[in-house]
Amino acid sequence: MSIGNKQTRDMLGRPDIVSLNEALLLLRQHLPPSPAQKVTLPLDEALGRVCAADIISPENLPPYSRSTMDGFAVRSMDTFGASEKMPAYLEVSGEIFMGEFPEQGPKPGACYSIATGGILPPGTDAVVMLEHTVAIDASMIEVVQPVAAGGNVIGVGEDVSRDELLLSAGHRLRPQDVGLLAGVGLASIAVFCRVRVGIISTGDEIVEHDQLPPPGKIRDTNSLSLAAQVRKLNATPTFYGIASDNEESLTGMVREAMADNEIVLLSGSSSVGTRDLGEQVIEKMGLPGIIVHGVAIKPGKPVIIARAADSMIYGLPGHPVSAAVAFDLFVRPAIIHLAGTRDDSLPVYSMIKARLMRNLSSASGRTDFVRVQVKMIQGQEPEAHPILGKSGALSTMVKAHGFIEIAEKLQGLKEGEMVEVKLFD
Amino acid sequence: MSIGNKQTRDMLGRPDIVSLNEALLLLRQHLPPSPAQKVTLPLDEALGRVCAADIISPENLPPYSRSTMDGFAVRSMDTFGASEKMPAYLEVSGEIFMGEFPEQGPKPGACYSIATGGILPPGTDAVVMLEHTVAIDASMIEVVQPVAAGGNVIGVGEDVSRDELLLSAGHRLRPQDVGLLAGVGLASIAVFCRVRVGIISTGDEIVEHDQLPPPGKIRDTNSLSLAAQVRKLNATPTFYGIASDNEESLTGMVREAMADNEIVLLSGSSSVGTRDLGEQVIEKMGLPGIIVHGVAIKPGKPVIIARAADSMIYGLPGHPVSAAVAFDLFVRPAIIHLAGTRDDSLPVYSMIKARLMRNLSSASGRTDFVRVQVKMIQGQEPEAHPILGKSGALSTMVKAHGFIEIAEKLQGLKEGEMVEVKLFD
Repeated sequence: MSIGNKQTRDMLGRPDIVSLNEALLLLRQHLPPSPAQKVTLPLDEALGRVCAADIISPENLPPYSRSTMDGFAVRSMDTFGASEKMPAYLEVSGEIFMGEFPEQGPKPGACYSIATGGILPPGTDAVVMLEHTVAIDASMIEVVQPVAAGGNVIGVGEDVSRDELLLSAGHRLRPQDVGLLAGVGLASIAVFCRVRVGIISTGDEIVEHDQLPPPGKIRDTNSLSLAAQVRKLNATPTFYGIASDNEESLTGMVREAMADNEIVLLSGSSSVGTRDLGEQVIEKMGLPGIIVHGVAIKPGKPVIIARAADSMIYGLPGHPVSAAVAFDLFVRPAIIHLAGTRDDSLPVYSMIKARLMRNLSSASGRTDFVRVQVKMIQGQEPEAHPILGKSGALSTMVKAHGFIEIAEKLQGLKEGEMVEVKLFD
Repeated sequence: MSIGNKQTRDMLGRPDIVSLNEALLLLRQHLPPSPAQKVTLPLDEALGRVCAADIISPENLPPYSRSTMDGFAVRSMDTFGASEKMPAYLEVSGEIFMGEFPEQGPKPGACYSIATGGILPPGTDAVVMLEHTVAIDASMIEVVQPVAAGGNVIGVGEDVSRDELLLSAGHRLRPQDVGLLAGVGLASIAVFCRVRVGIISTGDEIVEHDQLPPPGKIRDTNSLSLAAQVRKLNATPTFYGIASDNEESLTGMVREAMADNEIVLLSGSSSVGTRDLGEQVIEKMGLPGIIVHGVAIKPGKPVIIARAADSMIYGLPGHPVSAAVAFDLFVRPAIIHLAGTRDDSLPVYSMIKARLMRNLSSASGRTDFVRVQVKMIQGQEPEAHPILGKSGALSTMVKAHGFIEIAEKLQGLKEGEMVEVKLFD
């Protein structure tokens, strides 16, 4: 890999450009500690949030032994050896109503009818399924198959026992987790605060997107799409406005954004002058300062990653596609980390295997991300059609369903190869 | 398949049970038309919403020809035949500033310096990259490689042209779509209203999750996890409370929920009596009434799917795992349809291929969904560990990372097989 990097550096003529893997490693090494700020939320607002502490069950679930079938609550020994030819005869001496707590149970040789979810009456230890019985009359059944102790019953605490660890700190809450917490009576839960991301647009040519640009100017698009990428990760974007190409103005905005956010994004102009200014300002914000300046990827190469005190600061490329790719590769892992998430070991992208529909070339030593359109074809492999276009062209991202990655060591991909498409979600 | 269905019916003893594919087909045939209610939202609130109309670009993007590189704006013909040995000499007679609209351009044989994003001055048709020039002095460069007309330039309307279709009605807005709309000056957008889903819990044994259940009662968990599943799909859940096992009370609640929601979920008790009551009430709500009553799946079998006028009504199983599976299979497609989404042809689940770590048996003629835990192992295939547990046990869903599906025609899966795990997201 070190040879590959050397080549990259020579070829691109920028000695400070690092490979994608090096950049990710540097990023991981420099991530600030997760913030400790917590907030307690009612359960029905907690979906997608991250547990701020281990959650221990205060109760047994179920709190009582319950039937998992419709049938008859019995002493299992009363059904021993029962068969079609030699059924066991049991008196039906009572009925368990849903929601009723039975104070007493059937005598030996008798049973109570019970529905799924009903509480087992004292003395009984199993439920004979309705299907394994024949009604003789209103108060007598034949049992034609034996049931073992515990059969068709979910015992006290069998789902969750009191003091059991339900969810670990760092777990992101899914619908079923919310259900489980409701089940054990935890109606609110401590979660980490959302990660806050400040967004600053730079460049004298940029006006806010809801203004009519005077001749020569263009609307800010990246801050809108970056804010949307932030929201998709359950983080909170705040827009700090457009900084002109003026060191004092940009420095002030970055300081203001750093005060209230864990992450600050400079949504860069694409011009060298503005990029250089962004770099100067970021470098002044504190140690360790810029840790990555340019990565051997296409698009997304001119990204700056910095840490100043406990803030992450990014200089993102001005081209919309480059900005989106750089966000996904380098900002996303920081947001996930700073959210306090710990169980991020599973891939969280939607992937689809598809057949590549044309040759793609790529420089060895550089990781390429190619936008593709996926066509689903009945009875055949899906097709991945590369969308070739300038990285400044927003429309290519809109036409695309996702990306394919051409690894650093490859010089391209061949038409007809099966590729993994990382779908936008 | 008809033979498979016959077997299923015989085996399970319920003649009205249909296969998963039949149930999905019946569901699709009976889905009500998408609602036409629209709302206009500012762009930065539109992420994840569905376009209510085709969106046509009111403007060219870019509005002017812009440079995609740092370099010099030239007449391409002035660089014809240029090489290291025979460079073309050009006078640098001006500079394009970012955000400036150039009223005049260089004379033939001259050029203007330009940064990425700068607007091409009149008379020029290409940009020579900085890397392909050598500075002679402050006002003269050597061009060592020719550039074709249009080279390193993104032309007027090349990204998007005026009157071009940007997004179709039915498209769900992603971050890049928001960026593109910002770019052409559409600061607000008409989207379909969110699908509204009313949730009613049933069963005399159920109390609300934030109450202390008296002896014999248990907390409502399904309405919380179902509401979370609804929210994940960008729809709006409303909880209508717990209906006791009383026809009048339940009928009133269902009518109330139908009045304000496109979809009504009866989060069923697991008892036969309550299920029967739910069925009676649903059947009375209008035509065509119940279209599916029981599906050959495990878990999730006792699901009821009904349509009454333009409402979808579901009777979901009481077991939490069954309810979650039935929601995912049958409610999710209805929400996606009623949201007005049209581009749902791509799979939207995260999948991971993993090695199955134990044998699983399954009845032929039934589709099984088995919860699995996925273990990522460095340098090896991920492992899928089935979690076996009663379908009433919420904790099994919490321990799981996703599901594997055992198709109807299979009698099981073998240890060591590669399987696709549909991950919870």
